[in-house]
Amino acid sequence: MGGYTLSTTLDRPYDQAVGEVRAALADQGFGVLTEIDLRATLAAKLGVDVPPQVILGACRPQLAHAALQIEPTVAAVLPCNVVVRAVDETTTQVQAFDPEVMTALAGDDLAPVAHEARARLTAALAALDEED
Amino acid sequence: MGGYTLSTTLDRPYDQAVGEVRAALADQGFGVLTEIDLRATLAAKLGVDVPPQVILGACRPQLAHAALQIEPTVAAVLPCNVVVRAVDETTTQVQAFDPEVMTALAGDDLAPVAHEARARLTAALAALDEED
Repeated sequence: MGGYTLSTTLDRPYDQAVGEVRAALADQGFGVLTEIDLRATLAAKLGVDVPPQVILGACRPQLAHAALQIEPTVAAVLPCNVVVRAVDETTTQVQAFDPEVMTALAGDDLAPVAHEARARLTAALAALDEED
Repeated sequence: MGGYTLSTTLDRPYDQAVGEVRAALADQGFGVLTEIDLRATLAAKLGVDVPPQVILGACRPQLAHAALQIEPTVAAVLPCNVVVRAVDETTTQVQAFDPEVMTALAGDDLAPVAHEARARLTAALAALDEED
């Protein structure tokens, strides 16, 4: 599965990749409003061990505001999650929620905003690929 | 629109409703892992004024862990957003991302987990309605 995400796989260790993802998002105007260390959270709450992974809640305020003006319910799918997950010692997967899905869920009027968000996330992932 | 959310409208002021939503989620085993005060964020970043609203990232660790075991990409739609938004001085809208959408996006194998998450969120919203 994963057709609702934009993703790429990086030949770098997890810790390095997380820093690069933050920088690539910033370069495209996305701030990180929320952050969940899934491994730490599930270890603390359940005592289970999952691969290192973090959910970054990315938000470009101009786009979020434009989307809310068009369709207030879109808040239910904001911010845009970007998941960084360790595959092995030297491989890291990056998966962003595809903003086009917002259009499918919350209405075609959001298409212009979703297109811009998607273009910026695609550019961020492409920049990460180039660093490989 | 809004067919991808579970929602209810409460005859209470926003500040009161936010507290009650937190309590109703806790009663159903959901912790709040993230919180975005959209009004404050957009005012700070853009100088614009939107209605009071908060995005609560609700997570029941057992369900999140079960979902990740079935389909790791589901992290892109975790935690489950619950939006609380002021409509007017005495009316507040609550909208939760419908976990069934996770099944539509990330695969039918998630159905049992999504059903339980949906049942718990539905129960939380019903409890809020009863307080009206």
